[in-house]
Amino acid sequence: MNQKKEYLDKCVEQAAEAYQFLKTTTVRDRAKFMHAVADRIEGIGAELIETANRETSLPFPRLEGEKARTIWQWRSYGNAISNGLYSEARIDLANPEKGKNDIRKYNLGIGPVVVFGASNFPFAFSTAGGDTASAIAAGCPVIVKGHSGHEQTSTLMAKAISEVVQEFGWPEGVFNHVLGSEVEGTKEKIGAYLVAQSGIKAVGFTGSYWGGKALFDIANQREEPIPVFAEMGSINPVFAFGHILEEKAEALAKEYASSLTLGVGQFCTNPGLFIAVKGEALERFKVSLQEAIAEINSANMLNQGIYSHYEKNKDLLSNQSDVAVLSESKSIAESGQGRPRVALTSAANFLTNEVLAEEVFGPFGLLIEADSIAEVEKIAQNLKGQLTITFAGTEKDAEENKTIFNIIKDKAGRLLFNGMPTGVEVVYAMQHGGPFPSSTDPRFTSVGPDSIKRFLRPLAFQNWPDQFLPAELKNGNPLAISRLVDGTSTKDSINPNQ
Amino acid sequence: MNQKKEYLDKCVEQAAEAYQFLKTTTVRDRAKFMHAVADRIEGIGAELIETANRETSLPFPRLEGEKARTIWQWRSYGNAISNGLYSEARIDLANPEKGKNDIRKYNLGIGPVVVFGASNFPFAFSTAGGDTASAIAAGCPVIVKGHSGHEQTSTLMAKAISEVVQEFGWPEGVFNHVLGSEVEGTKEKIGAYLVAQSGIKAVGFTGSYWGGKALFDIANQREEPIPVFAEMGSINPVFAFGHILEEKAEALAKEYASSLTLGVGQFCTNPGLFIAVKGEALERFKVSLQEAIAEINSANMLNQGIYSHYEKNKDLLSNQSDVAVLSESKSIAESGQGRPRVALTSAANFLTNEVLAEEVFGPFGLLIEADSIAEVEKIAQNLKGQLTITFAGTEKDAEENKTIFNIIKDKAGRLLFNGMPTGVEVVYAMQHGGPFPSSTDPRFTSVGPDSIKRFLRPLAFQNWPDQFLPAELKNGNPLAISRLVDGTSTKDSINPNQ
Repeated sequence: MNQKKEYLDKCVEQAAEAYQFLKTTTVRDRAKFMHAVADRIEGIGAELIETANRETSLPFPRLEGEKARTIWQWRSYGNAISNGLYSEARIDLANPEKGKNDIRKYNLGIGPVVVFGASNFPFAFSTAGGDTASAIAAGCPVIVKGHSGHEQTSTLMAKAISEVVQEFGWPEGVFNHVLGSEVEGTKEKIGAYLVAQSGIKAVGFTGSYWGGKALFDIANQREEPIPVFAEMGSINPVFAFGHILEEKAEALAKEYASSLTLGVGQFCTNPGLFIAVKGEALERFKVSLQEAIAEINSANMLNQGIYSHYEKNKDLLSNQSDVAVLSESKSIAESGQGRPRVALTSAANFLTNEVLAEEVFGPFGLLIEADSIAEVEKIAQNLKGQLTITFAGTEKDAEENKTIFNIIKDKAGRLLFNGMPTGVEVVYAMQHGGPFPSSTDPRFTSVGPDSIKRFLRPLAFQNWPDQFLPAELKNGNPLAISRLVDGTSTKDSINPNQ
Repeated sequence: MNQKKEYLDKCVEQAAEAYQFLKTTTVRDRAKFMHAVADRIEGIGAELIETANRETSLPFPRLEGEKARTIWQWRSYGNAISNGLYSEARIDLANPEKGKNDIRKYNLGIGPVVVFGASNFPFAFSTAGGDTASAIAAGCPVIVKGHSGHEQTSTLMAKAISEVVQEFGWPEGVFNHVLGSEVEGTKEKIGAYLVAQSGIKAVGFTGSYWGGKALFDIANQREEPIPVFAEMGSINPVFAFGHILEEKAEALAKEYASSLTLGVGQFCTNPGLFIAVKGEALERFKVSLQEAIAEINSANMLNQGIYSHYEKNKDLLSNQSDVAVLSESKSIAESGQGRPRVALTSAANFLTNEVLAEEVFGPFGLLIEADSIAEVEKIAQNLKGQLTITFAGTEKDAEENKTIFNIIKDKAGRLLFNGMPTGVEVVYAMQHGGPFPSSTDPRFTSVGPDSIKRFLRPLAFQNWPDQFLPAELKNGNPLAISRLVDGTSTKDSINPNQ
């Protein structure tokens, strides 16, 4: 299915109008709206989960969990703007004796945002997902390009948001939903077309490296470049050290196998790489991992395209020289099903063959056996940017491997001390976004209230009378938010004429 | 003078080493360093001002003021990091019952930064200027490409910083200074070479649109794209409305003439455009402006290149069709001196000739006479991004022209209600950076403590034992900074095991 250029242009035009409206709303107004969207999604009923299950093969419990998470995103982002954290109101009062002016600054929405739905999270990173919620929280209208893998699910979510827009009497362009592949009568992708429009001011994307990078390039070659927040590929290495392997090789193997195959391995934070130094403990780990992987069933992947890529890429890696298959699920996979597999190679081989560091989207892991901790260090040093890196170790391991700890600080957005990286909590402290190429901009997160920051820009007012200032900056502080007044954080109202 | 590739590579290598060191410093350590740099600059003595005066022709009082401002930048940015504002420490405590992990996040330096000195501020936007101070505050080593217009001044400043680096026992690569034009034996510009090096992680620039855009493109075409904060051109329009013109046409004309010619018009915030509706009041304004400009002396510009560009560009604009010279300084300019001039055109002409919206760097202004407020609105709507826009009006004017007020919010980083835009205060609420093409990234400011944000990236730690966390995130809060703990701002220490 394709889309008419006229419809796309209308969406961009409506978004521009809606942006003018959203500029007049306060964080409180938008928080109220966001809670209403949460309520509406909560109320959609069984149809939503059933449709998503049919379109994505994701099981019911996972979808129920993802729905709850999506609702929480709307609520918690709404709460976060409501307390003014992202308004970053700063007021420097006039001091005529020193020739100082009254200057006040706050953050407002950057403008209309195009959001791309992701294949692997039909709720939380798609039409009503985190990018949409954070952009609207910031005061930006959104045009969602729904993912082709779950268009009916997307449409249900889009309907819920649009109904709330209508209920609130807000302009239609606050939220628009676009489906399809190409602009009718052309070979141009809808997404590329939208990102190139001058009315669009930022982009949110979760998906492949090639998809994200293509949008990034389009955005930076515009007459007016705009930011692209693309959360792309990551192999989320797990570095396991001597003492922890000694202590719990078997438990670690089970934990790793379980994380690697969770959701048929279709998570951005799937731990695709496991690195450790050879030895008796690692042998125990390998045996347990072999057994654990063998027992995990093959399962339906999100769609045929993802399945085909998985088949192709896991074989591509497995067939590299000096790579052996360590273990594979005993269950025979039907077409469309991802069959878990772990391959094995040496650190020396990994360090000389770049193909081995490519992401395989699905339940595939590569176990790297190093001859020495120096080789492990070299692998850490050579890593490209990652969303997460896990340090599996005891405190003694951490004490003994401070150099590696220090290296991985430069290589990822989130560092775990044990545990597994799958499971990205929606909290203030979350960082979901790492150095390139795991994302296009490591300065921002796409999960948690801080994701709102991506869609803001500051605007300063010099010497404006109170009645023209936004509520965030008025003397009386009607929103009761924290503000930095002459460098001190306070919720007090101010009286600049005293 | 050119530079050896080996020297440039050594600077990048040293910066990488220094970055590893700076990662181990706390905001307190860096604040102490910054105050020491401020002290050192304060102590340089008469040689600094004399050298800068000889190299830039800027008068002594202006240079004294700029020196004080530069010192204040180091001090106030140091104070700002010291209180933890830019660490943005967030702690979400574990809740095992709910399956929640302990996640903590703070901002650290993004990595080595290349800073380009500006021609027009030999102190405040050059070697020891705001970009350098904010990058070091963030924890980033800096390589400064000194401006060719004031290399001796730059060298004095560089020496001061390097002496403090040595005094503190910090690695040499925390600060390096590079002079020259091309990489020896090649035609490649030193700046372009540095920005392309994989060890460089961000760029700060103040200068022309073409210079900034070229660096932006290099940075975005790297294998790993990096942010470029280029503060480029702006014509800083002043919109004057009926009631204020009625009230004080003559005073406004004097104020405008004075701002336009301040520092021989060589400010980024020089108000190059003045827009008002025709009428008796505007006639009075014109007469006064004519008189005021006539009486302002020509004066030496920063260098011969800037002078030649000024001569060429003011004539280019003045010679467009339907443009007339309204007034020119009576003083005859010698070669190298900028002679103030104001030209006059109609709104209709301005709206159809893009050349008239180009920046003329120097004491040149364009006065636009509109037939109606609708034309003024159209001009506002068609403006490209600006650093500042001034609304010259009474409160009644503001009441009557809310549409224009709303439009200009999208067009600039700082909106003034009366006054003139020259004079950019170093305060928290300052926004110096506007929509493209006035800067490459309107989400950040290059003046004020908030400029530090440009050089930070967040890093999250999941379930790490206290001893491995940075001071900003330790349970005991040893730096006594404000932190967001489970969503609430507090300076308290925490006891996660209770």
